[in-house]
Amino acid sequence: MTTDFAATKAQFHLPSGVTYLDGNSLGPMPRAAAQRMRTRMEQEWAEMLITAWNRADWIHDPRRIGDRVGRLVGAATGTVVMGDTLSIKVHQALASALALRPDRRVILSDSGNFPSDLYIAQGLIATLGQGHSLKTPAPQDVLAAIDDTIAVVMLTEVDYRTGRRHDMQAIIQAAHRAGALVIWDLAHSAGAIPVNLGQSGVDFAVGCTYKFLNGGPGAPAFIYVRPDLAPMCRPALSGWLGHEAPFAFDPDYRPAGGIDRMRCGTPPVLALAALDAALDVWDQVDMADLQARSATLADRFIAGVEATCPDLTLVTPRDPARRGSQVSFAFDHGYPAMQAIIDRGVIGDFRAPNIMRFGITPLYLDEADIDRAIAVLADVMGNRLWDQPQYHQRAAVT
Amino acid sequence: MTTDFAATKAQFHLPSGVTYLDGNSLGPMPRAAAQRMRTRMEQEWAEMLITAWNRADWIHDPRRIGDRVGRLVGAATGTVVMGDTLSIKVHQALASALALRPDRRVILSDSGNFPSDLYIAQGLIATLGQGHSLKTPAPQDVLAAIDDTIAVVMLTEVDYRTGRRHDMQAIIQAAHRAGALVIWDLAHSAGAIPVNLGQSGVDFAVGCTYKFLNGGPGAPAFIYVRPDLAPMCRPALSGWLGHEAPFAFDPDYRPAGGIDRMRCGTPPVLALAALDAALDVWDQVDMADLQARSATLADRFIAGVEATCPDLTLVTPRDPARRGSQVSFAFDHGYPAMQAIIDRGVIGDFRAPNIMRFGITPLYLDEADIDRAIAVLADVMGNRLWDQPQYHQRAAVT
Repeated sequence: MTTDFAATKAQFHLPSGVTYLDGNSLGPMPRAAAQRMRTRMEQEWAEMLITAWNRADWIHDPRRIGDRVGRLVGAATGTVVMGDTLSIKVHQALASALALRPDRRVILSDSGNFPSDLYIAQGLIATLGQGHSLKTPAPQDVLAAIDDTIAVVMLTEVDYRTGRRHDMQAIIQAAHRAGALVIWDLAHSAGAIPVNLGQSGVDFAVGCTYKFLNGGPGAPAFIYVRPDLAPMCRPALSGWLGHEAPFAFDPDYRPAGGIDRMRCGTPPVLALAALDAALDVWDQVDMADLQARSATLADRFIAGVEATCPDLTLVTPRDPARRGSQVSFAFDHGYPAMQAIIDRGVIGDFRAPNIMRFGITPLYLDEADIDRAIAVLADVMGNRLWDQPQYHQRAAVT
Repeated sequence: MTTDFAATKAQFHLPSGVTYLDGNSLGPMPRAAAQRMRTRMEQEWAEMLITAWNRADWIHDPRRIGDRVGRLVGAATGTVVMGDTLSIKVHQALASALALRPDRRVILSDSGNFPSDLYIAQGLIATLGQGHSLKTPAPQDVLAAIDDTIAVVMLTEVDYRTGRRHDMQAIIQAAHRAGALVIWDLAHSAGAIPVNLGQSGVDFAVGCTYKFLNGGPGAPAFIYVRPDLAPMCRPALSGWLGHEAPFAFDPDYRPAGGIDRMRCGTPPVLALAALDAALDVWDQVDMADLQARSATLADRFIAGVEATCPDLTLVTPRDPARRGSQVSFAFDHGYPAMQAIIDRGVIGDFRAPNIMRFGITPLYLDEADIDRAIAVLADVMGNRLWDQPQYHQRAAVT
């Protein structure tokens, strides 16, 4: 192992008294992000003003930072670009893919996909008005559902509730054999498990950067397009920065070459500074090391919780190769239980109807954190602390 | 006049030795923005982590800040929401409007509209594949082009090159008489001139916040929908935060009531903090005062430049009621001339093919700034300083 996880942990601000197992929802702040943001605001925006687009090279941030994210998911230089939100990137990928398969009408996803991906598909189907349909079998039935009626297979690799991981390669191969395109949502993969987009042959991939990548709340999303496919994509969201020559102010849209056509509006310059600082930590990380360390910590957590909390039912696969980097338990009173746990300084989250989620993030979690989390869970469950009225009354926003 | 413009100027960081007439492209940094961003990062993100969505109420920022922007453009509380980029908001408004006029096929814009708005229309037309067309007559011919074939009139109120302002009210009335819907792009109106969306009866309005509003580079965009129309809009970009119950994780999209359905993905929490600070300055500003002050400063600038720079041709209307808050001159060597001006500490910008633009922003410009800008223009033009080779070689990014 070449990655020094004690060194990466020291690069995060972690609040005193808190054990944070929710980095799969919002990563903590890398210490360097605060200074990087100050520089961007006080040295670049404040001092350079409009000239910072050139002098600080803001204009190329979406591609430069895209390459940094791309390295973590096995994408070649020049195949990833940053911007917008994940939902917008899903729309871009799906609209492009459907246009490339005009003779087919079925989008295949699964019932475990993140709802926003399904909503975007539903919205696009309504906009197109061409009789497309969205099929959402159970995750284990996806492979069998792939046939030559399918235009696009659109899946999230790691299930946001259970942590179950799809067999990406088997699905890509089956889809391509059937003449379908494939879109992977890597929201719970990027920075969680090794991904090799280039080798996989996948057509499109999208993801967010505020979870495992620690880019900050609402950090920009990313999109990957297979390099040979990109020139054939017709951007549905054809904004000026995806134009071949944005500053020519031509009245007619001509898409930029390659991945640049997936840019749309003016990039989120401030947010990109925080993300850029977060990626400095990732430069020190080998993804195989990360996966091994995640498996060690997750196995320890599962063993500890199962030994002390018989009321919790593991819903995450026991085999590390079949899961992402989170551990989830089902419990009918999961919402108040999670509130009681948070009150005791261990932060996880709850997903309806009954899932308690815990992110396993080796960049800033170690055995002592896992053991503390187990102890708090054991206390809350063993002493039924969740059954106090105040834990039933809070707003369930996140 | 109740607005104290010396007091507003003191609230901006303005670099030493620089006179900034490009606030119509990127506003300068309000001093409070740096501290607000620090608070958001170091007290909220770093200390509250995921719980900040509730504890710091991030989840409601797009509506709360939307109301603050709404006040500046005459929109009632609850009719404006922040997020995404202006190009995305144009797409949302246009897709909604076209769906509300299914029997019509023509989008009417004009040849002076910002190209990204036209590109978005072209992309949407291609996606729909229903034979829609985009008409772009000259701005002065728009009124005459409105007839009962028009589904949507989509215009930018203030021309980004010339500063020419449309007669919003006449166009809305003509469009509504013809049964068409109207979308206003307020990119160069919000924070520049008084706008009263509520009284105007306009159907949709969109805008950005990094220009006159000083929200920071790539700051989030806004969208307004007429309150009685919002419940009829079917969001084309149907992301999870526009859902009626985002945290129910329902597999089927059901739009939220009213303007919330124009939310899409996770909001840009960091960027919203800078914008929020910028709006504190706006709370001290009366828009009628601002317009009067803009007219005074612009008239002074026009008179001074015309008296000293005979080679520059004014392309902005002389009548303050017919323009926004910028002054533009045509000059065939405008690109190198602007570089020479910038080199001398006066920042404006250049727009192809031959437009030199100067933003008139009373929040932080006074008579001394205008006089200094005139003196530098007179020097550059009178001594042909623009005709030096270094000014012809730079990259024209912004």
